[in-house]
Amino acid sequence: MSLIVQKYGGTSVGNPERIRRVAERVLATQQAGHQVVVVVSAMSGVTDSLIRLAREVSPEPSEREMDVLLATGEQTTIALLAMALNARGSRAVSLTGAQAGIVTDGTHTKARIANITPTEMRRLLDDGQIVIVAGFQGQTMAGQITTLGRGGSDLTAIAIAAALGAETCQIFTDVEGVYTCDPRIVPSARKLDELSYEEMLEMASSGSKVMQSRSVEFAKKFGVVFEVRSSFNDAPGTRVVEENMSMENVVIRGLSVEKNQAKITIADVPDRPGTAAAVFGALEKSGTVIDVIVQNVSHTNATDISFTLHKDDLDKARAALEPVVKEIGAARLEAKSGIAKLSVVGIGMRSHSGVAAKLFACLGSAGVNIQMISTSEIKIAVIIEEADITRAANVAHEAFGLANGALLAN
Amino acid sequence: MSLIVQKYGGTSVGNPERIRRVAERVLATQQAGHQVVVVVSAMSGVTDSLIRLAREVSPEPSEREMDVLLATGEQTTIALLAMALNARGSRAVSLTGAQAGIVTDGTHTKARIANITPTEMRRLLDDGQIVIVAGFQGQTMAGQITTLGRGGSDLTAIAIAAALGAETCQIFTDVEGVYTCDPRIVPSARKLDELSYEEMLEMASSGSKVMQSRSVEFAKKFGVVFEVRSSFNDAPGTRVVEENMSMENVVIRGLSVEKNQAKITIADVPDRPGTAAAVFGALEKSGTVIDVIVQNVSHTNATDISFTLHKDDLDKARAALEPVVKEIGAARLEAKSGIAKLSVVGIGMRSHSGVAAKLFACLGSAGVNIQMISTSEIKIAVIIEEADITRAANVAHEAFGLANGALLAN
Repeated sequence: MSLIVQKYGGTSVGNPERIRRVAERVLATQQAGHQVVVVVSAMSGVTDSLIRLAREVSPEPSEREMDVLLATGEQTTIALLAMALNARGSRAVSLTGAQAGIVTDGTHTKARIANITPTEMRRLLDDGQIVIVAGFQGQTMAGQITTLGRGGSDLTAIAIAAALGAETCQIFTDVEGVYTCDPRIVPSARKLDELSYEEMLEMASSGSKVMQSRSVEFAKKFGVVFEVRSSFNDAPGTRVVEENMSMENVVIRGLSVEKNQAKITIADVPDRPGTAAAVFGALEKSGTVIDVIVQNVSHTNATDISFTLHKDDLDKARAALEPVVKEIGAARLEAKSGIAKLSVVGIGMRSHSGVAAKLFACLGSAGVNIQMISTSEIKIAVIIEEADITRAANVAHEAFGLANGALLAN
Repeated sequence: MSLIVQKYGGTSVGNPERIRRVAERVLATQQAGHQVVVVVSAMSGVTDSLIRLAREVSPEPSEREMDVLLATGEQTTIALLAMALNARGSRAVSLTGAQAGIVTDGTHTKARIANITPTEMRRLLDDGQIVIVAGFQGQTMAGQITTLGRGGSDLTAIAIAAALGAETCQIFTDVEGVYTCDPRIVPSARKLDELSYEEMLEMASSGSKVMQSRSVEFAKKFGVVFEVRSSFNDAPGTRVVEENMSMENVVIRGLSVEKNQAKITIADVPDRPGTAAAVFGALEKSGTVIDVIVQNVSHTNATDISFTLHKDDLDKARAALEPVVKEIGAARLEAKSGIAKLSVVGIGMRSHSGVAAKLFACLGSAGVNIQMISTSEIKIAVIIEEADITRAANVAHEAFGLANGALLAN
């Protein structure tokens, strides 16, 4: 009998009525002849109100106690879902992260899964029961409650699927899958049936925030096939799988758009060792998250260092860098918000040249000026004016034929 | 260094501000030179809203899942109280029932404590930390989450005090202690400094619902001295201790009043074996809770069986008994509500006769008619009209000199 792991996010279990609907879907999966493990998040809003309570008793709650507090959110959902299944005559049993055998390291609020002992889950499944597991949580070897941080419930589901050798892991969410581009920006965007882990990772790190990168990396590492799909209808979603030969025939899988970006350029940085370290060390200390970094070859013993960041971090970054600019003897700091990032992603571009040329050509003929370029093996990202992003995404979507299947290599 | 266990009920930790106040009291106790273990209930209202959620997903939630659900209530409080203590610079750590080593049997929603392994609590205390434990919960040997039922947090506190050999266990609640009688009924009622376990048990089972009998029994069994006191002021409360010689000099410790009672009499029950079993078997099946039972000697081969119950159970009991009355060939069933129970309690009455006579005399001269009488070794209970209860309680309180210290044996 094949085993399916299903994960339902906070919106999907946001109230009793939705929990009852999830119960029906889970039951239908079992009745279709599968063993089922269900991983759930806290009901939407619950985690936020727990955090508010914590702030009312302490300005800076300890991370250990935050984990004890937040873990109650998922524990509430597992009990309610098990009850809803029992009410339908189904045998279902809830397990906390600890009871499910999920052992983590001791990094409270962002623990890493060390290993999973699936003995209890296996026993219950073999007994014909549906197993409901609290996502986002585990315990240390010493029995301390931990949580896994952002995207933790997805990670729980993928890790359980790996530990139990599940046939597939279904991630139910409030979107229908992964699209060739954000449909709010490109109306002709199309839902993808399938993409590779690498492509999913590049899409995720480039603004298509369906899932956190860490869960995708975990799935890639352990070869867990997963599917992102909607909990509000029965349409099939997008499967994320190991790269295969036929995938290389598709040059570009999709586009990813990230708005609300800013860039900082430090001009005329003296070309000597240690200057980049000084710049990014200061940024790290200030807690600024950096995205793309570009440094070009030096001219006249000085170079420009540019990087992008979220526009909300711009003031913080500028304040952190101003003393550094003086210290390293750079000419000046230029800051600019109102920019955006467009990325084209596809494992096919590895073996097919011409992707960059085609991208730059279509942007050029649409009058879109490219301010920065950054590439990885399967991605080309360009930084442009935010005002240009809709036009740029639509012309690129068209140029790469994404609306009608995808451009095949010629 | 002496160890104190403190228990705070749901009202005492009902909101963030009250949790902060509890933190101050706990800290003051530590600063006075004690090791401190704190047991807390769910914030008031939390358990009820969890039960409401459960009813929305299932008409009859499974008891195992109710325990998983309800255990989140206390887990929330322990984290918040630990945070509030940490915010005051104190080292405090929260433990769930399972983490505190509380092992129970598998009777979900009303589990019994099987044993406590206090290793972790002891380690933390020896390290100078304040230990915050979730009341009302434990886990089975197999790792299932259980709850202890009504009064469970008191039981947790008493059991931990026993396991750790605490000097005392302080039960903080919304009353100031145990009174000679309910002050709303007898204005001259006086707070008791001390009473014995047996007296506390009789007071508890006779309507003075400061604590559930099971916690008092547990304390008696393991010799745990505890004190019932208010969390809203610093006044000393009432200590409940092992019976001692001087206690016997006090004939009556207090009065207990229970209103909203009803009585049922089955008249002319044929005097043969099995009839009482038929009556009370039917009542048990209907879920009726019986209080006092009286059967007098038989006359003309038939007898009357009377018992009292809460008036809300009267219809249920009557419906359950009507077929039985026919079956056993009794003459009729008489039901009456609007009655009340007055109990006088004191271990001194064991060695001093005349208590019953004094009680009946003072009630008689106040014109209070006694409908039923029931006694235990240290209690005499009378059933009277509810309309008479205030007058009866006041004359008895006066007759036994309870307002001024207590009547000493002569």
